[in-house]
Parts: sequence; structure tokens; C-alpha cells
Amino acid sequence: MTFLEAQMRDIGQRARAAATALALADPAQRTTALRAMAQHLRATSAAILAANAADVARAKEKALAESFIDRLALTQQRLEAVAAGVETIAALPDPVGAVMAEWTPPNGLTIQRVRTPIGVIGMIFESRPNVAADAGALALRAGNAIILRGGSDSADSVAAIVAALRVALLSAGLSEDAIQAAPTADRAAVGMMLAGLDGAVDVIVPRGGKTLVARVQEEARVPVFAHLEGVCHTYIHTGADRAKAVAITVNAKMRRVSVCGATETLLIDRAIAAAVLPEIVAALKAQGCTLRGDDEARGIVAMETATDEDWRTEYLAPILAVRVVSDLEEAMAHIATYGSQHTDCIVTEDETTAGRFLREVDSAIVLHNASTQFADGGEFGFGGEIGIATGRLHARGPVGAEQLTTFKYVVRGSGQIRPG
Amino acid sequence: MTFLEAQMRDIGQRARAAATALALADPAQRTTALRAMAQHLRATSAAILAANAADVARAKEKALAESFIDRLALTQQRLEAVAAGVETIAALPDPVGAVMAEWTPPNGLTIQRVRTPIGVIGMIFESRPNVAADAGALALRAGNAIILRGGSDSADSVAAIVAALRVALLSAGLSEDAIQAAPTADRAAVGMMLAGLDGAVDVIVPRGGKTLVARVQEEARVPVFAHLEGVCHTYIHTGADRAKAVAITVNAKMRRVSVCGATETLLIDRAIAAAVLPEIVAALKAQGCTLRGDDEARGIVAMETATDEDWRTEYLAPILAVRVVSDLEEAMAHIATYGSQHTDCIVTEDETTAGRFLREVDSAIVLHNASTQFADGGEFGFGGEIGIATGRLHARGPVGAEQLTTFKYVVRGSGQIRPG
Repeated sequence: MTFLEAQMRDIGQRARAAATALALADPAQRTTALRAMAQHLRATSAAILAANAADVARAKEKALAESFIDRLALTQQRLEAVAAGVETIAALPDPVGAVMAEWTPPNGLTIQRVRTPIGVIGMIFESRPNVAADAGALALRAGNAIILRGGSDSADSVAAIVAALRVALLSAGLSEDAIQAAPTADRAAVGMMLAGLDGAVDVIVPRGGKTLVARVQEEARVPVFAHLEGVCHTYIHTGADRAKAVAITVNAKMRRVSVCGATETLLIDRAIAAAVLPEIVAALKAQGCTLRGDDEARGIVAMETATDEDWRTEYLAPILAVRVVSDLEEAMAHIATYGSQHTDCIVTEDETTAGRFLREVDSAIVLHNASTQFADGGEFGFGGEIGIATGRLHARGPVGAEQLTTFKYVVRGSGQIRPG
Repeated sequence: MTFLEAQMRDIGQRARAAATALALADPAQRTTALRAMAQHLRATSAAILAANAADVARAKEKALAESFIDRLALTQQRLEAVAAGVETIAALPDPVGAVMAEWTPPNGLTIQRVRTPIGVIGMIFESRPNVAADAGALALRAGNAIILRGGSDSADSVAAIVAALRVALLSAGLSEDAIQAAPTADRAAVGMMLAGLDGAVDVIVPRGGKTLVARVQEEARVPVFAHLEGVCHTYIHTGADRAKAVAITVNAKMRRVSVCGATETLLIDRAIAAAVLPEIVAALKAQGCTLRGDDEARGIVAMETATDEDWRTEYLAPILAVRVVSDLEEAMAHIATYGSQHTDCIVTEDETTAGRFLREVDSAIVLHNASTQFADGGEFGFGGEIGIATGRLHARGPVGAEQLTTFKYVVRGSGQIRPG
């Protein structure tokens, strides 16, 4: 066993023990710990920002991309937003112990389906150090232990944040091992987490670029909550309100181009394309968006040529692919062929058509007359999210505290034995 | 590509297409198809029984174990029970499209969590041909397509049952490819299903012995709903009612010794062991049960010696391990160490102690004053089960139609765009 293997195994065993202890602790302690986390993040903000400044300085020395450094850098304001986010999570109802359903079959037993923590979450993320606080708080809200493995470039920032969170756990009488940072120097640690640390990890949540998520989905031997990419669509139906169509498309693409819920392809019905597309394109271009269209779209307004590859691309950039379709059927067929089952929207005033789209499009989130950028745990009222999942089992869409629970059946009898 | 690979790939593609079509079909068609299935199973019972007789004859020629042949053999009566089971499933409420939750966050969107089918189930089972009908019906109730891969020894029986089910699908206007039997001659077909058939399989459900389930859990590259074993406990607390303790223990062990919910280890508090154990042992011995106890149990009543290995063993036989414990803590520690997180019971009249057991024992099913043999989808009111799961994600405990669904978020707006 290498030193790293021994170290990771120890982290796994500590996490499992902490998860077991957490499940038995007074639920109020978790709320107390969450409030203390927000407080300690604020109280140690100078130390956290100093650690972050060191990370940023090293990243600049290594001439890492500006977008990377932007994601890495913390400011007093960003840190305050992180602390406020933890407070929001502290104020969420405690999901653990909630009775999800209760019934009595003919045998007279009382059966309850009761929420319980999943156990140990393995979080693998890249540059953003705030993920450590968000994920740590959500995991704790649901009674889980978490192992955080960030990138080596944010190691000092994550260590400083995790230190604040662990002090808060201790101050609430909980084991500090409920939140641990895994070493970042050796990438082999990721492989060990994906193998499950000898059964110590129940689920892996990756947050980062497509390369990271693809590796996790390929190698993980434990379940994964993730989305590989968000090739999201906005479909403008013949029955769309023109003003809504323009406003929703521009917001869905341009509000933030780097989020997974950003629209990447606009589908528009032939019958209204000539009337609406020029206005949409003008509004997008005014915000610096490049357009790539099929022949028909380019016949209506000048834009670059879209290839088949464009329909499959998550740009995460101010680029929008545009395709003119005959009708709802063709729009849904396009989404089924090229989409990533993440988030897709129809704009129309026709309720029947909207109903078919919402029912038949097989994505984690389907929207009617609202921007795809609402694909977010905060906007869903989850108080935050550890990620968005496009898998079909357990967690789908934004993954908040409730999605980090499982359940058990609690059955009460009065001496029943089973006949025959 | 081998012929088998091409054949399995074709089965996967047909299943995926059938699942997509099923999701869009009129929900009433599935109920019609389920009723027709029961009818066709009855109408073709002569053919099914003849096919089964051929399987049984071959199994006898091969001198397979009598217990195996018993599981394989169908009778008119057993087949009628299968048809009646399918009718029960037809009468279940349709889970697909059910609104599980609905809320409106501050952004004014209406968000619904709506049940949808998982997609394609891969069922891998051994000798019991009735599994084909049970699993096919449950999968269809939840809007899923299913690929059934039984053992080669039951191939003719399964083929005859699947033929009846497929005729029923067609008669209801649904694709017969929603239920397909995979070839049984080559075991490589199982490996292909475990690899997911190029993304065509969403979840694997194995039904069979520990060797099969272990292989599936080890090799599967898609999620698995399964339990490796049921090392179930009945714990008799000091505060137990003596008559309930005897009746529950005897039923939990002896009603059917071969089911996964059968109790394998009896834990009994020291304070009442001398008073209650002799009666329990006498009642068990009268039914032909062998007992293996720790030193303390053997000091109270004569029995074989239990070793550490006994605590870990799922006997599936008329053998019961017995251990005397000090208290609830020691009983729960034993269950945490040796149990399989399947089903565990406490017998006591003390509500506080029962409450702690129900909360703290981390098993899929925890019972108070009722036999562990109630661990069954039918007894839970699920109308049947495709299996029992001890995994922590998505499905836990009995897996019925509802557990074979997933969900999506349906979001309705009135033109909302997301600020900032």
C-alpha cells in the first residue's frame, strides 16, 4: 500500500465513522453546525482570502487562463455570498427523518417510508473553492459526511475553507471528519475515490469540465450524480408570443453563457421564423452573440453556417446555433437526437402544444415560457445545489439536500406473523 | 462483431425504441395490455405447461438438484397464480405521469416533479420461469421495456410465457419489443447486458443465487437493483411480550426458510434469555430447525456451537444462529457488524427502545413486533416485486412498479427570464 493509499483509506474510514455518528446525532446539532459554518467563514475571512491570494499568485505564475483565475479568485464580497449561501442551507427544513409516505396494507402493519442520509459523498471538483463550502453545507444538511477533492491549484483556498467548516462541526459537538479535504498533489487520489475507498464512498459528485466528468462517469465503480454537458434548446413554436420569444431566447443564451443551463440551440417554427428571427438575432448580436444557422435561417438573416457538429455542441460561449423546423414533431426529434437530456424549453401560447412538449421531451427539466437559465437548485427553491444530474436514477435535475438523502421502510406491527 | 453481439445489440435497440414509444402511448393501453397478458397466460396455459414439461424433463436428464427442479416446474395452479398476479398488477394505479410534488418558488414558476418511466430494464434470472411474467408485468405497469435473460434450463418455459405477453402487447396496440427474451445458450449475453448494450439498458435487476448477484454487482457498468444476501435478525429485547417473541421468531425463521427475508440470527437479551429461549428453541426444534448458539445460549439450552462464520451466514435453510446480548446497544452493534442491511426486527413492548432500534438500525426494512418474512413487495401493498434492493440509491427494499419509475421537472412560466 502506498502512502497515498493509506491516507485515502484513512480518510474513507473516518468519513464512514463520521456518517454513522451523524445519523445518530441530535438533528438540531446539524443546524447549529451549519449556522456556525457561516459564522466561521466570516470570522476567518482574512485567512481564507490570504490563502486564496497565494493560490491566485501561483496560478498567475503558471500563466493559467484568465477564466480559470476568475473562477479561482475569492473576494470579500464573494466570500460573504458563500457564507450567506450556507445560512440559506441552515434555514432549510431538515430532510432527515421526514415521513415521505405512510400506509397500512391488509396485513395491518403500519409502513412508513422515512428519509435517511445517503452516507458518504465523494465530491471531485476543479477550480472554484466556494464549491467546498456549498457542497459541505448541503451534505451536512442531509446528514451526510463528505470528502472534498478539489484541484491542486485551489488547494490552499479549499484547505482554509474546510478548516472553518470543521471548527464549526466541532463547536456543534459533531465529528470534524464529516467534512474532509483529500490531498490534491497526486491525481491518483481521484482514482481511489472513484473506486469507492473500500466501500466508504456511497456516491460521487463531479463538478467541472467535460473531461473531468467523462473520466468520472467512465471510471467510477460507485454511483455518480452528474451531467456530462448541457446541450439545452429553446424552441419557438408558431403560437409563441413574440416579445416572450425574444426575451426568453436572449436571456437563455446570454445571461451567463458558461452555465450548463444556457441555451445552445434555438429551434424556430418555419411559419414564424421570417417574422421573429430578425428581431432575436439583432438582440443577440447587440450583446455580442455569434449565430450559426442552417440554410433556411441564413436565408432569413445573415449568419455563419451551422454544421451537424454545431447541433451537438455545448458552446459555453456567446454562440447560438439556429435551426428552422417544420413543427413540434421536428423540434422534438431534433432534441431527442442532439440533446443531452438536461434542460429544454418551448415558447408558445398554445397550451396543447406546450403540454405535448412537456410530456414527450425526455429531459431532466422541461420548461414552458421560461428561460432555460432557471435550471438551478437555488431557483428551484432547494437553497442551493451540489450539481445537476442527467442520469435517470435517484437524483435528476438540480441536486439539493433532499436529493442527497435515501430512505428506509419503518414497519410497526403488533405481533403479526406472515401466513402460508 | 459476433452473431450474438449483433443479436443482443438488436434486442437493445428494439427495447429502447419500444420504451420511447411506450412513454408516448396512451396510458390506458398499458392497462389493457396487462389485462390481456393475464388472459393470454391462461389461454395458452397448455402450451406453456408443455414447454415447461420439456424443460423439466431435460433438467431431470441432467440430474439437476431437486430444489432446482422444484423452482423450475410449473403446474396449472402455479400458472393460475402467475396470471392472477399479473391481474393484481393491472389493477394497480398507473404511476406514470403522477405529480409527486408541486410548488412555486419566489420566481413565480410552477414546478412539478412528475413520474416518468426509467426506460429499459435488464432482468437476469435463474430457474423460476414465473419471474418472466412478474417482471414483464411490473416493468410495463411503470411504462418500461424489459429484456429478460433467464437460465438456459428454463428457456422453453420463458419463451412460451414471453410469447403470451407479447401477443398481449400487440393486442393492446403496443410494440411487442417492450418485452423480449434474450438468448440463453451463451452466457456471454449476460456480460453484454451488464455492459449496458451500448447505452440501451438503464438498470439491471438480477434474481437468483449469491454467485449470480455477486457477478452482476461486480461487472455491471449500469446501475443495479439487488441484494447480495439477507442476513436478517430478530432481536428479542428484555421488554418483549413472550408469546409474540416465540411466534415471531418461529415464523421469521421457518415460514419459508429459502426467502431472503428469513431470519438467520436470533439476538436475545441476557435478562430474559433463560426465561424465553427454551420455549423458542422447543418450538423451532418441533419444526425441524437446527440451532447454533454462543456459549451463553448453550448454557441455557443444548444446541450446536456457533462460530463467527455463523453470524455472517445466510443459511436459507432450517438453521438459526443464536446469540445472547447485554442490551439494545450490543444487539445493534451485532447487526451493524454482521448484517446485510436487508431486514431486521425488534420484539419489545417498550416503545422508546423500539423507536431507537427503528431509527438507528441502518437497514432497508426495520420492523417492530412483526416477522421479518413480511419483507415482500406484495405484503407492502406494491402488488408484487421485481426484487428487493439493499443499495442506498433510488430503490431500497421491495422494488415494485413505483420504484421502476424516475421523474422529471415540468416547469411552467409566463415569460420569466432569470435576472443577473
